[in-house]
Parts: sequence; structure tokens; C-alpha cells
Amino acid sequence: MKMLRVDMARQQATWEPVPPVYERLGGRALIARILLEEVPATSEPLGPANKLILAPGLLGGTAATCSGRLSAGGKSPLTGGVKEANAGGNAGGDLGRLGIRGVIVEGQAPPGELYVLHVSADRAELVPAHELRGLGTYATAEALKARWGAHCTVICIGPAGERRLAAAGIAVTGEGRQNSRHAARGGLGALMGSRGLKAVVLDARGAPVVPLAEPELFRRASRRFARELIESPKTGKKGSSHLYGTASIVSAVNELGALPTRNFREGRFEQAENLRGETNREITLSRGGEMGTRCMPGCVIACSNVFVDPTGKPIVATLQYETIGLLGSNLGLGTLDDVAELNYLCNDLGLDTIEIGAALGVAAEAGLARFGDKEGFAALIHEIARDTVLGRTLGQGVVVTGRVLGVSRVPACKGQGMPAYDPRALKGNGVTYATSPMGADHTAGNAFGARNEVAPLAIEGHPALTRRLQLGAAMLDATGLCLFARPPVWADPQLMVDLINGCYGWGWTVEDLDRFCRQILRDELEFNRRAGFTAAHDRLPEFMMCEPLPPHNAVFDVPQDDLHAALAGL
Amino acid sequence: MKMLRVDMARQQATWEPVPPVYERLGGRALIARILLEEVPATSEPLGPANKLILAPGLLGGTAATCSGRLSAGGKSPLTGGVKEANAGGNAGGDLGRLGIRGVIVEGQAPPGELYVLHVSADRAELVPAHELRGLGTYATAEALKARWGAHCTVICIGPAGERRLAAAGIAVTGEGRQNSRHAARGGLGALMGSRGLKAVVLDARGAPVVPLAEPELFRRASRRFARELIESPKTGKKGSSHLYGTASIVSAVNELGALPTRNFREGRFEQAENLRGETNREITLSRGGEMGTRCMPGCVIACSNVFVDPTGKPIVATLQYETIGLLGSNLGLGTLDDVAELNYLCNDLGLDTIEIGAALGVAAEAGLARFGDKEGFAALIHEIARDTVLGRTLGQGVVVTGRVLGVSRVPACKGQGMPAYDPRALKGNGVTYATSPMGADHTAGNAFGARNEVAPLAIEGHPALTRRLQLGAAMLDATGLCLFARPPVWADPQLMVDLINGCYGWGWTVEDLDRFCRQILRDELEFNRRAGFTAAHDRLPEFMMCEPLPPHNAVFDVPQDDLHAALAGL
Repeated sequence: MKMLRVDMARQQATWEPVPPVYERLGGRALIARILLEEVPATSEPLGPANKLILAPGLLGGTAATCSGRLSAGGKSPLTGGVKEANAGGNAGGDLGRLGIRGVIVEGQAPPGELYVLHVSADRAELVPAHELRGLGTYATAEALKARWGAHCTVICIGPAGERRLAAAGIAVTGEGRQNSRHAARGGLGALMGSRGLKAVVLDARGAPVVPLAEPELFRRASRRFARELIESPKTGKKGSSHLYGTASIVSAVNELGALPTRNFREGRFEQAENLRGETNREITLSRGGEMGTRCMPGCVIACSNVFVDPTGKPIVATLQYETIGLLGSNLGLGTLDDVAELNYLCNDLGLDTIEIGAALGVAAEAGLARFGDKEGFAALIHEIARDTVLGRTLGQGVVVTGRVLGVSRVPACKGQGMPAYDPRALKGNGVTYATSPMGADHTAGNAFGARNEVAPLAIEGHPALTRRLQLGAAMLDATGLCLFARPPVWADPQLMVDLINGCYGWGWTVEDLDRFCRQILRDELEFNRRAGFTAAHDRLPEFMMCEPLPPHNAVFDVPQDDLHAALAGL
Repeated sequence: MKMLRVDMARQQATWEPVPPVYERLGGRALIARILLEEVPATSEPLGPANKLILAPGLLGGTAATCSGRLSAGGKSPLTGGVKEANAGGNAGGDLGRLGIRGVIVEGQAPPGELYVLHVSADRAELVPAHELRGLGTYATAEALKARWGAHCTVICIGPAGERRLAAAGIAVTGEGRQNSRHAARGGLGALMGSRGLKAVVLDARGAPVVPLAEPELFRRASRRFARELIESPKTGKKGSSHLYGTASIVSAVNELGALPTRNFREGRFEQAENLRGETNREITLSRGGEMGTRCMPGCVIACSNVFVDPTGKPIVATLQYETIGLLGSNLGLGTLDDVAELNYLCNDLGLDTIEIGAALGVAAEAGLARFGDKEGFAALIHEIARDTVLGRTLGQGVVVTGRVLGVSRVPACKGQGMPAYDPRALKGNGVTYATSPMGADHTAGNAFGARNEVAPLAIEGHPALTRRLQLGAAMLDATGLCLFARPPVWADPQLMVDLINGCYGWGWTVEDLDRFCRQILRDELEFNRRAGFTAAHDRLPEFMMCEPLPPHNAVFDVPQDDLHAALAGL
């Protein structure tokens, strides 16, 4: 394994051996450590000292199913703290097969210059890319594949990232039609744009198979891992994940009363039925779209879809739960066609649908659009495309939008907009949002899947639960595993240990794995501490502590002191 | 002495005795303590839990000259931390004579309602004031004086405060034509607006003389205090303060290379000559304006002026140094007429000229106006008046403006725009900006006056200096004294002790006074600590640490660790 260090100021890409301090780290774990070692925590996120890190997880590139997620990271332009966001698609697997532990993009290209980083098995170079300026993510990927070959994987930003908007994410190409996956959260697209880097093209053709230290151990574990996923009633071919995708939970979240509706005013949406995964399947298949597709090779779950318009033309792949919650019910929009249209606009500009959905909800609260009026919201996204002051405000995310428009009902933690679970009706997620070093994040420790373990409306029990979930999420994010693939490795961590030992021969125990996960959160919390975060920042917005959420009329009332238990003494 | 507690939710104003916990506190000291005791530090500044406090200093209402400043305070909508801003005019003296230690405005009026608080010697009541909605500060003061009598003092907000813009200040009427004084900094106008309070009318007619515990001691000290000011070459009738006002320092700051020029790009302005206090005197007197006027009764310095246009029509009173720096050189504007016009617009909207000057500089950097083009900047202020999205952005202050417009050269500390001393060329002020609990503030510990003690460009010596200055500033702000009146009491703190003992009979020593001052900063730092501030927030913007400032080509290079010495172990 090696590292690729990219100096944007000098336009040099240099291979280097993995330094001892970064050994045995991957994905999110590697990002946290690099930030601690190399980026002053108080530096300006868009200034010269910040670094963009792209890294596969420890299992990236191996034959382990669902292990090819790409982690992107840096000091967040949105939160000012540590940030890792990951995406499916082909990039994580490609980097793993190319033997690259991480790409560290540092410094800034001279003002006005724009580059593409091309990486293949034997070389890495920065290529001027002025012709891509202002292009959307779809056109950028198309142009780069036309130039470098359709087999290449493209990691890129849209105009939002070029303009350094804090709601900008990073898009990654994957399998199938229209496929666009996003490391969306935390403004990492703005960080990439601020380096002067428009895209990374990965050509893994001719890359050798990832070497395995203990091939038998790995193959046995890998086969068991896949088999358990295939045989599971949830993730197997008859499971809801495969049949209905992430949107399979719309009904359940709505039933729970936690579906963000009209800027988090209600927890149930009267048109939720139309937004369900089941409805998506029906519509999509009847129009010639696709359900049960994969975002990365070798995935045995295949939870994706290609949403098409009534004429069969692909709009987005894949239409996901969080997007449906934030761009759908949160805006009072009750058709998947409306959601898909806004989703496409965000994807193409390279914007996080969660952050923008939250910002649009706040804009509607301020009277700039009507809940339920898709045209109004599309017009607001076009303001972002046109780079107007209003558009720039929205593009900076929900907190800046609330500040500028004078709205105090701002659903965010540590500067990041909330995903599609109102924490008043699912208090475990409130604890995660408040305490995660990432800010409000649905992948950092989502209590929805554990709603039968701790009552979502109870005051007690959430901190211990989310501590476990946050550690489990860190494990997935550091190994490159998809959240949907968690059940086998969470149920039996020895399986994960076997995968890692099979690959690397480190002789880890379950205790080593646990230490590894705790160290990730410790590193992240330490970076945030240095950046100026304290327990005072571990909190939900004030309105959620006093404004009851229908239908349960619950407020978020987990005592502030209890929250701190979640990640204490890691 | 008594307290006036105003419950905006129930529209009740209630007199109460001064609680023991607030005894022996005035002005800024009282504000810090009330915030610690009554306002959760993590609460939303514009939410129901914050409180607006209006308080005279300990000497307010007495015959001690220059002691009538009004302190306004609360949790700052701009910085999120503790905030005290004070203003001249008649309000501090009136409150003192009315025997009011502090007015605590809490809760929020129902949405859409707006009130005026009328306070006289025997009663206090809230009166609906819908007819004042949207009125500028000048028209508001005029309307309220027409209704309640020209002898009344008006404390009010303009449209900016009503709209809860974080650059909104609080205006106070004073002596003479066009007089408009502002407790401008930190967004306290937005806090007042968020309570639904448009104005406070003080009628001190018939109020008794402030009782004195040791009349002889007080009179002796008070006479000595006035005499020293009168006899001083600086504050006396032939002194620069009286002759040229606060703008008397324009040349010296320009010479020092610390005059903010074109968004803090340069430290000398080629047209500084035209902005000098000497030029102001010449222009003003030639046009029939006034120099050497007072803002409050009994002031022996009289540093104010009434700036008039070429026809003799009053524009603003008083035209001040910080305004000239931020709305003049910082915008590349080289005539006092231009500065006065923008100053008037800000005053009338109820906006902090420092914060708005800084925001306009950043807007020019983003290309929304040209440096030197007064019409362009006036048009931007009109955007604020028209409540457009751009106007709201500017009105939220320089940090939000930089964020939305994508400018990284943002001159601010802890969220507050910098006053008119570039800290690269006057490093002591950089230490104050970075470490003061108030954020960047020219009254919190201004090293300009001590520039002959510690070399402004040296790396060493500033923390100890600004510690002394910050303690001295706290003394002034807690007693109601004007910054210009500091020399006698800073040179001999026993004089201040005598004034306080003469008034209250507390038998304080100089050590007691020192303890009192240290406690103010301790209380403020404790509030900020609870609000989430750490040493990581004690820093200047990144660009000032790496971008050399002409003409000295200095960067701010006081080591971060040294900064913390300034207020350590208080």
C-alpha cells in the first residue's frame, strides 16, 4: 500500500510509502488521524492549511462484498470540525485495487486554475481542466469518461463545489445508468473546490488483485459475510432493502412520527404513502426504470434504483430515503417525481440533498416558497445555479440560511442540517446528532434500526445505545463497508476481525477491533476539541427542546448531562 | 436603588429591590452577573431565554463628569457570547437619577406586537407602539419626544433591530442637534427587537438628586476629577479631544500604518488627510456646524461635533473615528461628506457603523461595489433598508457576509467585525481583539493610547499591556465613565475609589476596586466558557497571520500561546 500526496500549489502528485503513524488505518480512521497530524484544527476550512483526503476503507478493493465505499474527509467548511463522508460507487474499490491507502490533496492551485487528477496503476498526474469549469457533475463525469475511457471512475464536484458552497458534496460514479453517488455531507465539495481540484479520474485497469495475507481465512470470512447478507430476510433477494431500497423505511418512520414534515413542524406527512419505497418500486418498474441495482461491483444486496420519468428517461440513480425525507415531506412535496426532479438538480450542481432540503424548508418558513409547491423550490435551487446572493445563502446550508432569513427554527447540530429523523420522536438520533463529532448525521449512529431496543420516545437509555451505534458506524466507515451490510459484522465482530486478519495478517482480536473503533472517535473528538468544540456544542436546536412535535407532541427532553455519557471515557 | 424588571410576554413592568447578588454592581459588571445568574449561556440569543439589560454605571446620575454612559447588554446575537456595549447621551444619567440600577427586559412580546417602555420617577409602563413600526431612529426619537416631552430621553432601535439583524445597535438621544449615540456593537438592537421593544422613554423630571453617602469625599473627588480633565493638555479646552473629537487620531493611526484601508488590505490611506479631525473642524466650522459639543450634561471634555452639509444642514452628530475608519478609509472613501452620508443611513436604520463598514468592505472585495464609490456603498445600505436578501446578509454582519459572498478576508474576532486599528500594525489591539470576551472591540482594551509603552510592531509585551487595559476598560464600563475621561482614574485609582466611596460609603480600597474589575472579566469569561468558547476562539483571522500589511508589511505574529497570558489567572 502507498499514499498519494498531491500538492496543488506546485501541481505535483507524489507517491510515498504509508508513514508509520498512518499504518493500519483506513477510511474514516485514516482521515481523523491525518487531520490530527497534519491540519491545524483552528485553520480556515477553505484556506491553504486544510487538506482533502480520499481514502478507501481497510477492505476496499478486496472481494468482500459491500466493502468499496469511498471516504472523503477534511476539516468541514460546514461545521468547522472533523468531517468524513462516504459514498458508494466504484471509487473505494478502485483505490483499494490500485494499492492506494489514501490521497492527500493539500495546498491550493493558483486562483483561477482548475485541475483533474488522473491516477492509474503506474502514474498520477494533474491535468489542467479549464474546459470543465462550471460543468455539472453528470456532464463532468461524461466528459472525463469520454476522454479517459468509460471504464474509469470519476470523483468530481459540480459548480457548487467550485464556488466553495458549504453544502457542496463530492460525486462518485458507479455501476449502471445515471449512477451518481455522493459523499455529500459537511461541505467536502467546497474543500475540493478550494484546492482547485475539479475531479479525480481513477483507472484501475491492470491493477493487480489485492494481496491477501491469509487467503483462506479471508475467503472463508468473506463467503460467510456474503452468505449471511444473502440469507437475511432484510438484505436478501426478498428483503426490503433489495426490493424497496433505503426508502423502504418511509412508512415506518412516518408511523413513528419522526418524518420531517414542512421544516420539522410535524412528524407525519399526509402524503407519505406516495413517497414509500413500495410506491417507488411500483412506479419505477411500470415505467421501465430499475429496482434492485448495485452501486458497486460485487454487492449482494443491490438496494439501488434508477428512477425514470413517465417516458422512461432516467432522472436519478438512486432515489434515497434521506433525500425523500428532506426534499419531499420536509418541503410538503408528496410525489416521487417532484423529489426526483429536485434531487437531480442538487446532484448535478453537486449539492448535498439533506443540507439543501433543510435550507429550502427554512426558506419556505421565511416565505420564499410555499410548502408543497415544487416549482417554487426548483426556482430556489436555480438561484443556487445562477449564483445569486439568495442562491449563495441557500448553498451555504441551513444555518446560514436561517441566520440570513431570520428564521429561528433551524434543524441543525454543530452547523450541519439534520437528516430525515426528527429527534423529538426518535430521541436516540437526537443523542447521536448532538454528540457525534460529525454533527447531525444519519450514518454516525442511527437509532432507527434499534427502535425496538430503546423506546424512541423514552427519556432514558439512548446515550448507551448511541455510543454502541457510533462505535459500530466508525467500524463500517473505516473498513469501507456499507451501512446496509452491518448486521453480520455487528452481530459477530469476530467476522470483521477475520476479514481484516485475512487481508492483512495483523492477528487482531475482537478487543483490538474495539480499541480501533474507540480510537477513531477519540481522534475525531480530539480534533474537534482543538478546533474549539466543547460540551456546550453537544445540543439540539432550542426549538426542538420546547416545541412539541405532532402527532406525539414530544419535545427533545433527554437531559443535557445525560448526553455527555454517550461518548464519555472512550 | 431599585431594579425594573420588564416581562414582555405579559407586558408587565415591575419594580423590585436590588437583589443581594447584584449589589455593588453597575453597568458592565451588573450585566455580566445578570447573564451568569439568569440567562442559560447556551440559549439562542434571539430566543425567549435571553434578556436585554440596560444599566447605568455605578456613578451614573451623579455630578461626576463624564459618568453618564448607558450600558446595554445580553447574550450577543452577533458573537453568541457575553456582550456589553455602551453609549453616551442622556440615558445613563437619567437612569441613575431615577434610582434605577438596571432594567431587565425578559421574555418576548407576542409576534407582531411592538411596545414602548415609559419610565418616570413614579411609574413604568409598556405602551403599544405599532405606529412606530419600521421608523428610523431619528423619526422614532422625534415621535416619542413629541408625545412624551422634549425633555425625555429616548433609547430606541431602528428597522434593523426590529428585523433582528445582528449588526443592529441601540440608539440613545443626547444633548444638542441631531444627536444620536449608539450602543452599537454586538447586535443588541436585534436582541431588543426580539423582545418586541421598540423604545424606552425616560422621564427623569422630578427625580431627586442622587443621594451621597459621604458628600464631602464625593465632592472633593469629583472636583479633582473634573479639574484634572480640564487642565490636561489632551482633554482640556485646548486639547485635541475637544478641538477635533475622536477623529483627532486619524493622522496618528495612518502614520502608524494601522488605518483600515480597502478591506484591511493596507494600513495607510492616501486620502487620510481629508478624514482627519482637523479637517473635520475646518469644514464643520466653515459651514456653520459645531465642534466641541457635549453628548451628555456636565461633560467637561465636549469631544462631539455636529457635522453639517455645505448648506449647513446637520447630517450626523457626532462623526467619530471608528466610523471614519470603517465607512471611510476601509471603503476607499476620502471625504467626510461621503462618510457622514453613510453614517446617517446607518444611524437611522439603527446599524453599527463598524460592523456595517466591515461588511461593506467585504462586499466590495466580492465585487458588489467599488472601493471609493460612495454611491455603490449607499446602494448596498439601501438593500438593508429594503430588506432584500443581500441587505439581510450585510445586516447580519461581516462574518455572515463573508460566508455568503465567499470571501475569506474577513476582519473579525469571535464573530464581531474589527474596529479601525489593523492589528498587524498595532499588535496590542490584536491581543485585545483575540482575547476580550467581547470579540474585536476598540473599547475593551485599546492599545493605541499606549503605543509609546510597547512598540506596536514588536512581538512581545502586548499581553501584559492589554490585560491592564482590559481591566481599566472594565472599570470605566462598570462606573459609566467615558473612555476619554480615563486618564485621572487610571493614573490614580484612589480617585475612582473616592468617587465610589463618596457615593456609596462602601469603604473600598484600591485593592477592592482591582478585585471588582477582575471579577467583571472573570464573570464574562465564565459566561463565554459556558457558551462554548475556548482558547481556540482567541485568535485573529487567518489572513492577518499570513498576509503582510503595507506599509510595514507586518503580519500578526504574536504567538498563540502568548495571547492566553493576557487574561490568565485573573
